[in-house]
Amino acid sequence: MLSFLAALKRILVGRPFRTEKLKRAPLRKRLALPIFSASAFSSIAYAPDEVILTLALAGLSAMAFSPLIGLAVMVVMLVIIASYRQSVKAYPSGGGDYEIASVNLGPRAGTTVAAALLVDFVLTVAVSISSASHYVVAALPALAGSQTWIATGGVVVLTVLNLRGRGRSRLGTAAPVYLFVGVVLVMLAAGGILAATGNLGSAPSAGFDVVPDPQYPHGLTGLAGVLLVLRAFSTGSAALTGVEVPISNVHTLAAPKARNAASVLLLLGLIAGALTLGTMYLARAVKVHVVEDPATGLQLNGGPIPADYIQNPVLGQLAHAIFGAGSLGLYLVLALTVAVLLMASHTSFNSFPNLASHLATDGYLPRQLRTRGDRLGFSNGILALAIAAIVLIWVFEAHVPTLIQLYVVGVFVSFTLSQLGMIRHWGRELAQTPDKRVRARIHRSRLLNLVGLVLTAAVLVIVLGTRLVHGAWLAVLGIAVLFIMMDSLHRHYKQVDAELSIGGEESATALPARVHALVLVSTLRKPVLRAVAFARASRPSKLDAIVVDSDSERTEATLREWEALGIPVPITVLASPYREIPAPLIEHIRSIKRDSPRDLIVVYIPEYVVGRWWEQLVHNQTAMRIKNRLHYEPGVVVASVPWRLASSEDSLALGSPNTLPISNPKETP
Amino acid sequence: MLSFLAALKRILVGRPFRTEKLKRAPLRKRLALPIFSASAFSSIAYAPDEVILTLALAGLSAMAFSPLIGLAVMVVMLVIIASYRQSVKAYPSGGGDYEIASVNLGPRAGTTVAAALLVDFVLTVAVSISSASHYVVAALPALAGSQTWIATGGVVVLTVLNLRGRGRSRLGTAAPVYLFVGVVLVMLAAGGILAATGNLGSAPSAGFDVVPDPQYPHGLTGLAGVLLVLRAFSTGSAALTGVEVPISNVHTLAAPKARNAASVLLLLGLIAGALTLGTMYLARAVKVHVVEDPATGLQLNGGPIPADYIQNPVLGQLAHAIFGAGSLGLYLVLALTVAVLLMASHTSFNSFPNLASHLATDGYLPRQLRTRGDRLGFSNGILALAIAAIVLIWVFEAHVPTLIQLYVVGVFVSFTLSQLGMIRHWGRELAQTPDKRVRARIHRSRLLNLVGLVLTAAVLVIVLGTRLVHGAWLAVLGIAVLFIMMDSLHRHYKQVDAELSIGGEESATALPARVHALVLVSTLRKPVLRAVAFARASRPSKLDAIVVDSDSERTEATLREWEALGIPVPITVLASPYREIPAPLIEHIRSIKRDSPRDLIVVYIPEYVVGRWWEQLVHNQTAMRIKNRLHYEPGVVVASVPWRLASSEDSLALGSPNTLPISNPKETP
Repeated sequence: MLSFLAALKRILVGRPFRTEKLKRAPLRKRLALPIFSASAFSSIAYAPDEVILTLALAGLSAMAFSPLIGLAVMVVMLVIIASYRQSVKAYPSGGGDYEIASVNLGPRAGTTVAAALLVDFVLTVAVSISSASHYVVAALPALAGSQTWIATGGVVVLTVLNLRGRGRSRLGTAAPVYLFVGVVLVMLAAGGILAATGNLGSAPSAGFDVVPDPQYPHGLTGLAGVLLVLRAFSTGSAALTGVEVPISNVHTLAAPKARNAASVLLLLGLIAGALTLGTMYLARAVKVHVVEDPATGLQLNGGPIPADYIQNPVLGQLAHAIFGAGSLGLYLVLALTVAVLLMASHTSFNSFPNLASHLATDGYLPRQLRTRGDRLGFSNGILALAIAAIVLIWVFEAHVPTLIQLYVVGVFVSFTLSQLGMIRHWGRELAQTPDKRVRARIHRSRLLNLVGLVLTAAVLVIVLGTRLVHGAWLAVLGIAVLFIMMDSLHRHYKQVDAELSIGGEESATALPARVHALVLVSTLRKPVLRAVAFARASRPSKLDAIVVDSDSERTEATLREWEALGIPVPITVLASPYREIPAPLIEHIRSIKRDSPRDLIVVYIPEYVVGRWWEQLVHNQTAMRIKNRLHYEPGVVVASVPWRLASSEDSLALGSPNTLPISNPKETP
Repeated sequence: MLSFLAALKRILVGRPFRTEKLKRAPLRKRLALPIFSASAFSSIAYAPDEVILTLALAGLSAMAFSPLIGLAVMVVMLVIIASYRQSVKAYPSGGGDYEIASVNLGPRAGTTVAAALLVDFVLTVAVSISSASHYVVAALPALAGSQTWIATGGVVVLTVLNLRGRGRSRLGTAAPVYLFVGVVLVMLAAGGILAATGNLGSAPSAGFDVVPDPQYPHGLTGLAGVLLVLRAFSTGSAALTGVEVPISNVHTLAAPKARNAASVLLLLGLIAGALTLGTMYLARAVKVHVVEDPATGLQLNGGPIPADYIQNPVLGQLAHAIFGAGSLGLYLVLALTVAVLLMASHTSFNSFPNLASHLATDGYLPRQLRTRGDRLGFSNGILALAIAAIVLIWVFEAHVPTLIQLYVVGVFVSFTLSQLGMIRHWGRELAQTPDKRVRARIHRSRLLNLVGLVLTAAVLVIVLGTRLVHGAWLAVLGIAVLFIMMDSLHRHYKQVDAELSIGGEESATALPARVHALVLVSTLRKPVLRAVAFARASRPSKLDAIVVDSDSERTEATLREWEALGIPVPITVLASPYREIPAPLIEHIRSIKRDSPRDLIVVYIPEYVVGRWWEQLVHNQTAMRIKNRLHYEPGVVVASVPWRLASSEDSLALGSPNTLPISNPKETP
């Protein structure tokens, strides 16, 4: 069983890598830009859709707002980037918002940021892959309806790749991103020219009428309208996720790290801005009509739309309008979008386990998340992320408009807290800097962060205010749960540390007075003899064999054989009126303790080592129970003397996963 | 958690009993009869129904056969009883058919009998309780439809009673059986008189016409008819279950055990015969019309029967016809039938665990089934039986006509094999007895068993032939599975025995040359110090501390502190290129073994003892993995040095189940 799993693991994951393999050359800007930006750029694959279909609730006319909202999103992004450019200079270690918050606002804030980011990393995967699955369908309509399966498959592939430590090839990650940006820019340019010359075609969905939601009878008028615009804006702000990637990866950059990170950030902002604005504008120009539920939200000259209509994403419809149906350009855009969306998730598959391992090292998450797996990836973190993402994908059936409601809550929590943290940071700086000119610069920096704080906080409020009921509550809940978990785990670890750390008083050389060894005897068999021999070999000050008399006939038999074999160890019989093994033993040990409290008691327990799973059920049960009970007795050491049954040999031959690297230390080059 | 379960157990099961309580006065005949016969007598609660509704498939006229079939069943019963009367004299130990078969036909036969009996004990509970639930409904029609729940409740109550070691009150068991027999006999007598005087009323269902099954257009004519009669007979033979009870309880009887058992058997046979025949005859006289599915099988003057019609069992309808609707007599019959059916299942709740424990002692079932629980009942056996019965009740929705199809396969397998065994037995006797007169008697006995063999074998063939497709296959499958399980488990235990039993060659006093102790060190904390101290206290010939270098920084830190604390033990660092703990350790141990093969290696592992379940997840994981791996290394003893975390104290205070009897050895009187 175990060895089968081990074999399976080897096939999927491959032979382990040596730790040395970890060292890598620092990252040059031209590669850093695409690698760090995949997540930010990929958002134009779904953000525009969400803005438009939210506005669509208020009918056709409302859609006119989409470019404006795109603009608003851009402004926020540029402010955030500007402030990050100075944060990264102040904190070039790669700790990112988590570090900034913990250092300046204390661990609680740090934990909150961490929880928020973890949740959003999961959502990045869920949203990107789900969106990717819809692009796949746009390219291969035959697959319509099986998006959930496609998305799941995508996550699985990414998981295996990351467990194998593959996808660490930098060029492999960079190339598709560059291609994507290139193709989309070309498309936007072409679209712009066509529009200018008045030859711009129209989207497949242009012909449909949009049925406004009964809640919004008069378009965007009144409070309802304002709220809807805000909601559209908040969904659109999904375009802002991924901006935090560079700052949390500064350490991998080539020197001067901070300067390079800053310029990467700038380029990221400009390109992402251009892409988003362009897409928004052209989507409007070609009359892309996307709604949350086409069946009810769209009409074809008054009647229902064709039942087999598949609503393709905005980017797809743009390509369709500009390059034409079935054109190479269209398929290129679709393919590259899928690629870049995969890259975006891939970034999360690095960030999530990295952050988790950071947190585990600081004692906020279980230790298992800290260590690197066979192929140097943080395997457990990778698996955790994958499972969480798949669950989300299944719960929401890879439906982006619903998933998006949970999204960006996390990033904005961390944005806001890190801005606040920076303000604190500058405050401290000011306190220590006499120099006028420097102080002036610091004042400017702080002002920028202040603006950032106001903006990000505002967005956070808008996000929560307009989407809490639409699903954001789930994200908030997730963050809260994670926070509580991490916080209590941390307290536990701290308490244990306090309990266990070696203070001055203990002497590291003190010794228990004497060793009193007990050998537990049931039916007299070879394992018992071995236990006795081992016990005697350790030359205890006192050695007794113990029989618990839970079944008088067996006890007598045992005593007789003991005599017959002439074993040179006194044997004590413990009465057990309630036919129990552990209880009388404990009683006996306690009485020994009472007589000589400073004695160390070592209980030798013969134990079977079995090969087949069901044998475990029919052996050792009592031994296990006894061991568990003895663990609670102070000053008692349990020495289990194993006896390997013949059946265990084969399972040994097959080998447990741990033996493999030894039996063959070579690794795949 | 654990302590909660412990508390719950105490509430349900009560304080443990001392083993002395087991000794009981031998059983006098007048109590033995009812206690041993409950199962046999109770069958008239359902056997007649099954006979009649099977015949009903061939229409009204066919039902005339029911008394004849009753007669046939009686004949078989008397022969079996006659042969048992001599078996019990030959095997007075209470081993029953299991013993007879194993002694005379070899262990395989014994195992088969055991498997067959276990299956039938389960079915006794399922059938009796299900049937009881229908009597409850007959008394309280409001409960119609919830038979499954009633039956489940019944099983649960019996289980708790038996776990509590209650229901061992002999008078409590005997009284209802006597009352039941008395009341039913009175009813039959009254019925007989009324019939003789022509004043016998008719059953509630007398007015209905029976719709014959299309398979039997011309009543019982032809082969189909013959087969149907045989099938009716085979279902009727359910009346024969329970006949084996006395022989498997001889040992509890007062001396002369064998003689008393024989007379109990005789009385059992006579009474059971009278009850069955009487019921069959009167059921016919009052025109009880029961069918498998009243909705389709019954008609009221050509039209369908009332939708709310509840088909009551034969015994109920008899009481109704003889004592009158709503009469005290009717409710008395119903109540006592329920009582006696419960007693019948109660018998199985003794027989099943007893047999299971027998089998466990002989190594055919897991050891856990051998030992007595807190209240001296074989708790695990009781639970196994209860679960199996409840599963059956739910699968078949407490529907007796379906359950009955699985029934009596088991008993007849064991009847047949035990008859065969007895014939062998007599054969051996003959070989050793010269005395003419004795030989003559033995010849007679053997003849009787021969007749018994022919009869029981015939019935078994009929049962399988007529019911295999109707559900008996499931019983056969169950028996087969149990047989295979027990057989392979036995082979396993035997192999282990051979492996472990102490032969002449080993000396019970040999000792390993030297003890080489290793202390496993991770981060340097109190538990490590304790482990080191304990290791040193056991004065090994050689002592090393071991650090596995899975994380270089931590290793260095550990080494520094080790220096600082001046621990007088050399510390060895094991390289771990693949960031693993167990593998390098094993390698190291193997190399030590290579250098000095006769050394005993003791590995001291510091271990945390935690209180809360989730703490187990965040501690000891590595320790566990290491221990499991080390178990497979020859000549290695694992000594785990426990360190109890503060959190473990409270869970200790609450106490694990084992501590309770000690903390308060008093028991409920």
